[in-house]
Amino acid sequence: MAGRRGLEIYLDLLSQPCRAIHILVNVNKIPHILKTVALRKGEQKTPDFAKLNPMQKVPVIDDNGFVLTESDAILKYLATKYHVPDHWYPKQPERRARVDEYTAWHHTNTRPQAAKVFLLEVLLPRMAGQPTEQARVERAVSELSVTLDKLQDMFLKRQPFLCGDDISLADLLAACELMQPLGGGRDVLQDRPVLQRWLGRVQSAVGSSFDEAHAVLYRLRDNAKAKL
Amino acid sequence: MAGRRGLEIYLDLLSQPCRAIHILVNVNKIPHILKTVALRKGEQKTPDFAKLNPMQKVPVIDDNGFVLTESDAILKYLATKYHVPDHWYPKQPERRARVDEYTAWHHTNTRPQAAKVFLLEVLLPRMAGQPTEQARVERAVSELSVTLDKLQDMFLKRQPFLCGDDISLADLLAACELMQPLGGGRDVLQDRPVLQRWLGRVQSAVGSSFDEAHAVLYRLRDNAKAKL
Repeated sequence: MAGRRGLEIYLDLLSQPCRAIHILVNVNKIPHILKTVALRKGEQKTPDFAKLNPMQKVPVIDDNGFVLTESDAILKYLATKYHVPDHWYPKQPERRARVDEYTAWHHTNTRPQAAKVFLLEVLLPRMAGQPTEQARVERAVSELSVTLDKLQDMFLKRQPFLCGDDISLADLLAACELMQPLGGGRDVLQDRPVLQRWLGRVQSAVGSSFDEAHAVLYRLRDNAKAKL
Repeated sequence: MAGRRGLEIYLDLLSQPCRAIHILVNVNKIPHILKTVALRKGEQKTPDFAKLNPMQKVPVIDDNGFVLTESDAILKYLATKYHVPDHWYPKQPERRARVDEYTAWHHTNTRPQAAKVFLLEVLLPRMAGQPTEQARVERAVSELSVTLDKLQDMFLKRQPFLCGDDISLADLLAACELMQPLGGGRDVLQDRPVLQRWLGRVQSAVGSSFDEAHAVLYRLRDNAKAKL
C-alpha cells in the first residue's frame, strides 16, 4: 500500500463542475494537491488517467486511495469528510433535501443546457473550423432561457440563495455552469437582474476563489471579444 | 396550519423513479398515503397538482407540509428521515459517496437511455398511431448497451450490488429503470447474465414489493406480447 498522500484533485478549470470543486476546497482551506488534466490535449484519455477513472472524465479525486468520480458526489463527500460549515450541505434532513433536490434537477436542466450553448458557440466551431448555424445556437439559448426562468421563479422565489438563506453546494454548481457561455462571449444573465443579484451574492460569499477558478474562462472570453 | 396529515406520496407506477420510491417505503414499512397521479390522463397538469409541484412532474412527496420533488432527493430524504437500515444509504462518508456517485451518473446514463427505448417503442407509437422507425429504435438500444457494459464492467465488477455488498438506493433506481423497456416487450437484460443475476439479487432483497410496484408494467408487457 502507498503511504498517505493526502487529497489529490484531478481537474481542468475549463470544466464547470471542476470549478465548483476548486472553489469549495479553496474557500474552506481543505489541503489538497491539484493535478491538472488538460481536456483539450486529450489528457483524460492517457492510460494512466484511464486507470484512475475508466470513465475518462474529470473531475476525479483520490483521497488517500479512495477514488471518487462525479462532481455532485465529490462535492458532498468533501463537505462531509472535511467538516465544512453546515450551510454548504446542511445536516438537517429537510434542508439537506433541498440541496439534493437542486443538484438532481441540475443534471438534466442547468448543466446540459448551459453546456450546450458553450459547445455550439466555442467547441464545435473550433473543431469544424466554422461557426455553428445561428438557428441551432438560438434554439439552445432559448432552451436555457426556460431553465433560467425556473431558477428565478421557483428556486430563488423567496430566498437569496437557491436552497435557502445561505450559500450551498447547489449555488456553486449552478453559478459555475451559468458562467460557461461567457467563454464564447455570451452573458446568459444579461437582462436577468434577479439572477445577476444572486450571482453577485455567490461571488461575495466565496471571495477571490471565484475569480481564481474562472481565470482561464475569463481569458477565453477576452479572446472571443477581441475577435469581434 | 393544517393538522399533521403524515407522509403523502404522489406517483404513477408507470414512472420508473416512482416505483423506486414505492419499493423503498413498502420494504421499510414507512407509513404513507399513496396519491396516484395518472400521467396518461394528464393529471400532473391540473391546477391543484401544479400548485403542489409547479414543475408538473411526479414523484412528489408532501411530508406534513414539507413538499419535495426529484426522486433522487426524495429517496435520500426518506432513508434519512425514517431511519431505514443503513445499507440503503450508508452514513459512513466513503460508502455514502459511492451511492451519490452512482445516482449522479444515473441521471445522464441509465435513466435517459432506458427511458428513450420505452419512449420510442411504447409512447411515441401510441401518440403517432404507427411504430417508430426501426433504425431509431436500434440506435437507442445500442446507446443503452454502452451503459449496460459500464454497469457490469465498472459498478458490478467486484461486488454483488452497484455500490457494495448490500442493496442501496442506487440498485432501486437502476433496476426500476432497466425494467421499463419491458413495457414494450423488450428485455434489455437478455444475454446479460451478470446483470440478470444482479437484478435477481435486487428482487430477492425487496421481496414482493418488487412485483407490486411493477404490476402495471407487467400488464403493459403482456399486452405488447399479445399483439405480436
